[in-house]
Amino acid sequence: MTIAVTRSGEPETKPTRNSVSARPAAQAARVPDGTVQYLRIGDLQLESGVQLPDVVLGFETWGTLNADASNAVLIEHALTGDTHVTRGASEEPGWWEQLAGPGAPVDTDKYFVVSINILGGCYGSTGPSTPAPDGRPWGSRFPLVTLRDTTSAEARLADALGIDSWYAVLGGSLGGARALEWAVTYPSRVRRCAVISVGASSTAEQIAFAQAQTLAIRQDPNFNGGDYYGGPEPEAGLALARRIAHITYRSAAELDGRFGRNAQESEAPLEAGSLAGRGRYQVESYLDHQGNKLVRRFDANSYIAITEALMSHDVCRGRGSLRDSLAPATAEFLVAAVDSDRLYFPAQSRALAEALPGGPELHIIEAPIGHDGFLTEIGQLSGQLRSNFFA
Amino acid sequence: MTIAVTRSGEPETKPTRNSVSARPAAQAARVPDGTVQYLRIGDLQLESGVQLPDVVLGFETWGTLNADASNAVLIEHALTGDTHVTRGASEEPGWWEQLAGPGAPVDTDKYFVVSINILGGCYGSTGPSTPAPDGRPWGSRFPLVTLRDTTSAEARLADALGIDSWYAVLGGSLGGARALEWAVTYPSRVRRCAVISVGASSTAEQIAFAQAQTLAIRQDPNFNGGDYYGGPEPEAGLALARRIAHITYRSAAELDGRFGRNAQESEAPLEAGSLAGRGRYQVESYLDHQGNKLVRRFDANSYIAITEALMSHDVCRGRGSLRDSLAPATAEFLVAAVDSDRLYFPAQSRALAEALPGGPELHIIEAPIGHDGFLTEIGQLSGQLRSNFFA
Repeated sequence: MTIAVTRSGEPETKPTRNSVSARPAAQAARVPDGTVQYLRIGDLQLESGVQLPDVVLGFETWGTLNADASNAVLIEHALTGDTHVTRGASEEPGWWEQLAGPGAPVDTDKYFVVSINILGGCYGSTGPSTPAPDGRPWGSRFPLVTLRDTTSAEARLADALGIDSWYAVLGGSLGGARALEWAVTYPSRVRRCAVISVGASSTAEQIAFAQAQTLAIRQDPNFNGGDYYGGPEPEAGLALARRIAHITYRSAAELDGRFGRNAQESEAPLEAGSLAGRGRYQVESYLDHQGNKLVRRFDANSYIAITEALMSHDVCRGRGSLRDSLAPATAEFLVAAVDSDRLYFPAQSRALAEALPGGPELHIIEAPIGHDGFLTEIGQLSGQLRSNFFA
Repeated sequence: MTIAVTRSGEPETKPTRNSVSARPAAQAARVPDGTVQYLRIGDLQLESGVQLPDVVLGFETWGTLNADASNAVLIEHALTGDTHVTRGASEEPGWWEQLAGPGAPVDTDKYFVVSINILGGCYGSTGPSTPAPDGRPWGSRFPLVTLRDTTSAEARLADALGIDSWYAVLGGSLGGARALEWAVTYPSRVRRCAVISVGASSTAEQIAFAQAQTLAIRQDPNFNGGDYYGGPEPEAGLALARRIAHITYRSAAELDGRFGRNAQESEAPLEAGSLAGRGRYQVESYLDHQGNKLVRRFDANSYIAITEALMSHDVCRGRGSLRDSLAPATAEFLVAAVDSDRLYFPAQSRALAEALPGGPELHIIEAPIGHDGFLTEIGQLSGQLRSNFFA
């Protein structure tokens, strides 16, 4: 049911996503660690009532599932993340090597680690840029998917891999929201759950920043309602979306300490400028760089689709109060937040922790960088992760 | 040297700005309070080295300048503000009526109150939408103006009005930066100065949010490099810029308390949406409204020009350390910040207060709303303003 496809190109190259072919599961060989595989999971009934046909999920694995399938760990990526959590057959670095790998807290010599590209993404899973049944990319027709939709898709992948329950599900930011949704939707399938740098639902402010980002793309003259494949892509819009997001991922102190009011080298923000243009401040050049870097590796429609999935994040929808909604979860929880995070405030993580069964302690990651500390400073949780989760 | 032009249209109507004619000062009659007047101040040498020809400033006044010209108060507007601080001949409400008017802390029965449209603006002053010497709008050719440029232009207006020194100069946000620049550039001309909700310079984060806003406009397909007059205007870009700004003007708690995750009435954010569109959350509808409201009353190029002037805000440029830069100022200062402001952090106002001669106390305005509290909660400073400034 799965096929192996070697991860192609440089880490920052936009992946080709239309290369999924249908090889029967029987032919699947042992796939090297840390290479993208694909699974067809069939048609998916979405929360909106729409049916999404012939869904494919891209994923990577590391290590070996043990005989009673009790050592499987799911690591969920964030908004523009991919499935490459840590290095594998190739030495291509992953995005959470502090967390997972040989000898890391999630020891890939001991655990069978799985990472799934979120439905709607552009790193192997069905998304706006993959072909609809008529052979053309989904484009503007790609339906709204919620985090519950992406979770139910992932449950089918777990079924196919023979994983009845995860030893642990972990994630930060959007990944944390995905992990939480797993633990609440499938209580018996999640024994441990780490929810890092995200609260129980997307707040009005998080929705507001997300709207600005999706509008930046939608207003790009190349967007064409989402049907831009084969033509010029809405790169300027995607880069602007990323700039807005990136500001919220970093603290004011981080930006000011790194860049202050300095001019970009050999540019003069105050000399002979006009509305036609002027020299840049360093922080502008930095954000230009962040925007342009994402454009080279990410699909603008997927950015919208996943952002709107994140806007849908609400563990309480249709379930009652926060405490009632969380009550069915039987996992052991680890909740953590970065103290300087100004997008997913620690207070939101605290409210989640307090409402969870057993009221786990909130772990504070001390990092002046802001939200992105969940990626760069996960080492601060090593002790807790090792002693509580991965002893 | 001044001419009176009745303020035209509804408060939210984009003003016509090309109606300035050259009537000699001798013909100027007593102008009704709170109506826009215009003053030609001649050519202006800009900080960049560029010379801006034949500059006009729009302004309003209230009350009467006394015999020794000792009762003049300058109130500086914020980014998208206009000169209409409070009502006058007409009953059209102003934007800071809590602060200025008959019986208000700045009592217009006692003080001669002046408000000047910032250079680059679209409420009466020379800006991108006004005619260059060739008769066409400046558009893309409008030069970069800094807050020092706008301040030196305003000093000429003070000269023309016969105001050698201001009893007080007051402002919040950009208006506070303008007030501070006045007090430091012309120490002998400012006897009291209130700097509200802004620090000593625009920080990297403030520059970063500003860049996102200017890019939102510049990337609008109707922007045409700034030369859009006579054709379709970059309305979508300006509205997006405003949405981004407005999020930063309000606290997370304010947005979440007002809107939470509610759907806009009769819309469904999670039903049958696609990349082509979906129902909105309330907070999205609210920000759409804020964006569209600004589009009806503001010029997109002026938004860029003034935003870039604000990016230039740095009282230290060319003057040394913060303390050294502020040392020449002889005004009595009032520094205030809104406790929940997350764009102009109270810590930045505190750093300014501590570095000012005499180290004035920082006044905290308690308002959960965020930055916009400087407009809505100025009444909290009434006591200080009355006892310290306007006794």
